[in-house]
Amino acid sequence: MCADSHDTISLNPFFQPRGVAVIGASHDPTKLGYGLARNLVQSNYKGAVHFINPKGGSLFGQPVHASILDAPDPLDLAILLIPAQLVLQALEECGQRGLKAAVIGSGGFRETGPQGAALERECLQVAASHGMRLIGPNCIGLLDTHLPMDATFLPPPGPFPGDVAFISHSGAICAAVIDWARGHSFGLSRLVSLGNQADVNETDVLGPVADDPFTKVLTLYLEGIQDGRRFVAEAGRITRRKPVIALKVGRFAGGQRAVASHTGALAGQESAYNAAFRRAGVIRAETSEEIFDWARALAWCPPPLGRGVAVLTNAGGPGVTAADVLESDHMHLAELSAATRLALQAELPPAASLGNPVDMLASASPEQYACCLQILLEDPGVHAVLVILPPPPLYTAGAVAKAIIPVVHHAEKPVVVALMGERLIQEAVEHLRAAHIPEYRFPERAASALAVLAQRAEFLARQDSPEALLCDVDQPKARLLLGEYRASAAPPVAGGFIPRPGESIPRLLPPALLEGMLACYCIQTPALHLAQTAAEAAQIAALVGFPVALKVASPDIPHKSDVNGVLLNLWDAGAAAQGFHQVVENASRARPQARIDGVTVQRMLPAGQDVIVGALQDPQFGPLVMFGAGGVETEELKDVSFALAPLTEEEAGYLLDSTWAGRKLKGYRSLPPADREAVVQVLLRFARFAADFPELAEIEINPLRALGQGQGAFALDLRARLVIESTRRHKDTKET
Amino acid sequence: MCADSHDTISLNPFFQPRGVAVIGASHDPTKLGYGLARNLVQSNYKGAVHFINPKGGSLFGQPVHASILDAPDPLDLAILLIPAQLVLQALEECGQRGLKAAVIGSGGFRETGPQGAALERECLQVAASHGMRLIGPNCIGLLDTHLPMDATFLPPPGPFPGDVAFISHSGAICAAVIDWARGHSFGLSRLVSLGNQADVNETDVLGPVADDPFTKVLTLYLEGIQDGRRFVAEAGRITRRKPVIALKVGRFAGGQRAVASHTGALAGQESAYNAAFRRAGVIRAETSEEIFDWARALAWCPPPLGRGVAVLTNAGGPGVTAADVLESDHMHLAELSAATRLALQAELPPAASLGNPVDMLASASPEQYACCLQILLEDPGVHAVLVILPPPPLYTAGAVAKAIIPVVHHAEKPVVVALMGERLIQEAVEHLRAAHIPEYRFPERAASALAVLAQRAEFLARQDSPEALLCDVDQPKARLLLGEYRASAAPPVAGGFIPRPGESIPRLLPPALLEGMLACYCIQTPALHLAQTAAEAAQIAALVGFPVALKVASPDIPHKSDVNGVLLNLWDAGAAAQGFHQVVENASRARPQARIDGVTVQRMLPAGQDVIVGALQDPQFGPLVMFGAGGVETEELKDVSFALAPLTEEEAGYLLDSTWAGRKLKGYRSLPPADREAVVQVLLRFARFAADFPELAEIEINPLRALGQGQGAFALDLRARLVIESTRRHKDTKET
Repeated sequence: MCADSHDTISLNPFFQPRGVAVIGASHDPTKLGYGLARNLVQSNYKGAVHFINPKGGSLFGQPVHASILDAPDPLDLAILLIPAQLVLQALEECGQRGLKAAVIGSGGFRETGPQGAALERECLQVAASHGMRLIGPNCIGLLDTHLPMDATFLPPPGPFPGDVAFISHSGAICAAVIDWARGHSFGLSRLVSLGNQADVNETDVLGPVADDPFTKVLTLYLEGIQDGRRFVAEAGRITRRKPVIALKVGRFAGGQRAVASHTGALAGQESAYNAAFRRAGVIRAETSEEIFDWARALAWCPPPLGRGVAVLTNAGGPGVTAADVLESDHMHLAELSAATRLALQAELPPAASLGNPVDMLASASPEQYACCLQILLEDPGVHAVLVILPPPPLYTAGAVAKAIIPVVHHAEKPVVVALMGERLIQEAVEHLRAAHIPEYRFPERAASALAVLAQRAEFLARQDSPEALLCDVDQPKARLLLGEYRASAAPPVAGGFIPRPGESIPRLLPPALLEGMLACYCIQTPALHLAQTAAEAAQIAALVGFPVALKVASPDIPHKSDVNGVLLNLWDAGAAAQGFHQVVENASRARPQARIDGVTVQRMLPAGQDVIVGALQDPQFGPLVMFGAGGVETEELKDVSFALAPLTEEEAGYLLDSTWAGRKLKGYRSLPPADREAVVQVLLRFARFAADFPELAEIEINPLRALGQGQGAFALDLRARLVIESTRRHKDTKET
Repeated sequence: MCADSHDTISLNPFFQPRGVAVIGASHDPTKLGYGLARNLVQSNYKGAVHFINPKGGSLFGQPVHASILDAPDPLDLAILLIPAQLVLQALEECGQRGLKAAVIGSGGFRETGPQGAALERECLQVAASHGMRLIGPNCIGLLDTHLPMDATFLPPPGPFPGDVAFISHSGAICAAVIDWARGHSFGLSRLVSLGNQADVNETDVLGPVADDPFTKVLTLYLEGIQDGRRFVAEAGRITRRKPVIALKVGRFAGGQRAVASHTGALAGQESAYNAAFRRAGVIRAETSEEIFDWARALAWCPPPLGRGVAVLTNAGGPGVTAADVLESDHMHLAELSAATRLALQAELPPAASLGNPVDMLASASPEQYACCLQILLEDPGVHAVLVILPPPPLYTAGAVAKAIIPVVHHAEKPVVVALMGERLIQEAVEHLRAAHIPEYRFPERAASALAVLAQRAEFLARQDSPEALLCDVDQPKARLLLGEYRASAAPPVAGGFIPRPGESIPRLLPPALLEGMLACYCIQTPALHLAQTAAEAAQIAALVGFPVALKVASPDIPHKSDVNGVLLNLWDAGAAAQGFHQVVENASRARPQARIDGVTVQRMLPAGQDVIVGALQDPQFGPLVMFGAGGVETEELKDVSFALAPLTEEEAGYLLDSTWAGRKLKGYRSLPPADREAVVQVLLRFARFAADFPELAEIEINPLRALGQGQGAFALDLRARLVIESTRRHKDTKET
């Protein structure tokens, strides 16, 4: 299978077909093939419609062909709704007929077990052999409300035309979303159900859907991502043009992986997804409701120029609630100008509150709502307005809605409305929906939509920062060092490392090797010397200068302090010699099976701020770097942050700013500032290193000591684990 | 005003009136007095209804009396809807007529400014002089759907009869809730709008509302709490019988208070509210939606016996979403028994997933839903079931709902339903609502309702743990010490401490005094000696033994390390003498105006785990204790937890278990376990100390060093700030 060339085949026939064939079109209303035929016809699709069923006859006034080979031109897309065992033959005929696109709606493939999975692979082979792309199997199809074309088998009516596209791994969610959207008069542009993704996956459809001029916002329901790096690249291109919101489920479903570092223990699947979405500019929703709460705002509102919000209300209570939520969403209540207050005063009764929230009192009329909204929108300190509308006692909410619509439509700032209640606000809901003004039932949800608008505006305002250049990095030399080590240390039979019998701890690289490799990336370590005897330890200590630190050197002990394998602050040669014995003895007692190469001797650095810098190879997204509070308690403090490697300077700054360990590098109370810039430089080089050496499954500097300003940052302890190739080969064998 | 005797007057006439008078009843449909008269009549209230208006005439077929003095018996409650300036006279007449309860709906009081506030105080005086209780002013009234009685002026129709009571500080929220509940066929039992709370407040109504046999759940919308301790006591009594859910808004509205401790800086208003709600067993909702999502489940479902949930679905995607949310709400997917799997297998097609979530596939029939639900409920490992129902392709959601209702009604375990979609599920929604089975539009909300049910069940299973006895505490001696100090140190004019001119740092108690007071509470400090000269420092150091720590002694320096006023690990007399000069010089340079009493000398303790223990007097809730990670970074790490003082043993355990600093006292990796029990004992005594000495505005032990198991915990540094009485007196003067 030539996956690469296959992937480049256009998906256009799915989205712009001149003719569609329904294979398995049926007269029986309980069959999916009936539903699809009906939807295609009733959706007012303008292209040619062909029904295929060996039984022949006619359906919806059209002839039913016995085979796709009989269907006349134009014909670009086939939808298959026939039993799984008939699909292969039908696909073959589609290929012969020259089709380049097919949707397999039928189930009975990978989701049912190994036999179905085999059948699915065969389908892909047939399709590839004809240069044909597949959506599905096991999906509900796709639709486009503007073309229009409804190629799903769901019960009618379909969604209203709209500006939000929905791409989903779950067909049931598609059905629920269509029904929910229709019930809320909320329109969709395109909907794609991806099913088992034998061929076309979540990344493939992003571009074609984003190219649709009617689609203003893309929303994704994801159960996973097949090729993380490609998704990040593709989504990153799209988010510059159109917002993408993703709900990623299966957060707790990920299995545990064997790890030998704090980074590994902390980097759950979720850290990688969050880092990837952030890099790609994808907005991550936590609940199903948020997807569409946010999509409406993003589709219909201009971006705000800041985070200052004015709240306009006719009651105090909901104003307070809104203020709370705005604050917790990192928005703030705008300080209203004196001119604004004067203008409001002229419109409102004396008891009204002219601060922010502006409480017009329960007597507020539709005209007062409109006029005060206009005044607030004119205040340069106000970047967005949240209008709160509980059922007004003296007027109808509908009249208020009608009054404010023209004001909102003329505004260049976002306005969202929190309508509180149900029946008494129904008319207002309908007016606002028709006018494409986002309305929410509770102030909390309206506030969260404003926060997402601000987040989006800030994203668009940021320039794409380029990856750091790092001309001083000497990758070839580092690779040479690793190659030499592997050549000398690798058992020839397996071409890599093999765990020794009964060994559960993965093998680590020798610290000196890692030190040398990191030196090629300009990451400094205090000179580290291996002593193999107590006398050597004393000798080296005298040479490097006191005080010294001793650490056990073993490829089998990832966390030295766990075995009391670290001694600090030794002030003379005698202490160093005695310390050698103690460290070796402690380590041997705690890990009798570990190979102990000796003890490393290091001059101790002055005090500074210690942080952790780690990286691992994420199975979905590749190299992922971690920064944060180090030491043995890293896993519990969880003061860490993740980003995809390599880093831009901006992302390195994000890692520092999003952790307390990073923020306090600037100094805090009696704690003097540390060399923050040196830490940034280490992060950039370390991330490049992790990206350059994917064969290092985990790499960790813990601690990295940042000295005072201008004095640099030093890696005090290092560890790295090689991918164990024998295991990997074993897995490959199993799959073929 | 004799508030105490007044408070004990029954609120029964508000909730069980034999007759109600509407003062300000009006013919004009745009007047609130018309709305109230209409609602009272149309709500089918069975008692006597009296309309009062000087214009006379008749209304809704009843005579209108010119004055309440003319209204015949029975008459227990008056509702006033007349202009503010007429209220005083009308209240006086109510008193003369012998009424014991009045609701003032009218606005124009405290909410409008000082003049209105004065009028409000006069109303309260008139009411008190007649032994009459007041609800309002500035409220929408109250209603009871079972009595029935609608004494609000909101547009009809009112809510359906139900089992959830709503008590609110905001009238607008009441209007929205009534409308929303009606629109969702969700019934209420009682609703009380509290308005300005001139007299009756949120705590007063708790008991009477909880006593209503039709009310199964109390829900509160709070903008604050007037008397925190009374609320905690009253709500604590009620939550043993009936669940109470509170939404507390105004989170970010609290002003900043001047603080001289980490505890003070960290203890926002929210920490106090959270501690109070936890102590009282009140469930805190974060959004308006959660109140009623949770109230339905609490009103209609039996308590689960554990946190194991089975998810029953006809589609994979929503099942994964539900599993995610359950995990993040600390619920878990139940492990299904072999018998359960076998029974499910017999009912379902081979491709169905028999794990948990149980995916019956899209073909699932109403009978399969009912039967599988029954099977899951019979599994002893399943404590609750979440049923997921997107529009089923082959059946109606309504038919599924009808099929499962009898199963749910016979179950002794909670079942909640996530209905996904809108129109296609409407029939199912109606069946389930009528059957009192909680249904939600999204699996996330259904899962969160199950988590609240589990939380409630766990609360009920816990015994009320008594306050710790602490027979060894010698409060009189501690009070004597403080009294002696105040007598000697207090300037006689103010009867307390007065800040010196230009002084911004609040005055602290001398460490030795605080050490003595805490010793009376069996809280140990390493002996602490004040040296006033370098020679004295050297002498004391030799006496207590090396190494020693030196700390500047000054009532004006709350954070000694901020001024480099701390030296640790001094190993000989020379170092101690030199250290004395250094510490004094550093402190004087940093704080030229501070009074420096000398330097304290302390023998250094062995290494251990350092934590912080603090307390402050919260204006709402009184003494509040804090426990967590100490040191200078306390405010940034935020690894702290709060509870109301004094503590029960259980609450002390909670403080430890809810912080990493507390959890690691049990040991972690190479960190040996510390004397956790000693820390618990210090916490109990410290909390009692804080409760016994409300005049200490802030008290802090930072660090408290916990040594190895059985070796105790020692307060290494102490600080406490006295309430500055002159300021307090000044404030009192202003208010009268």
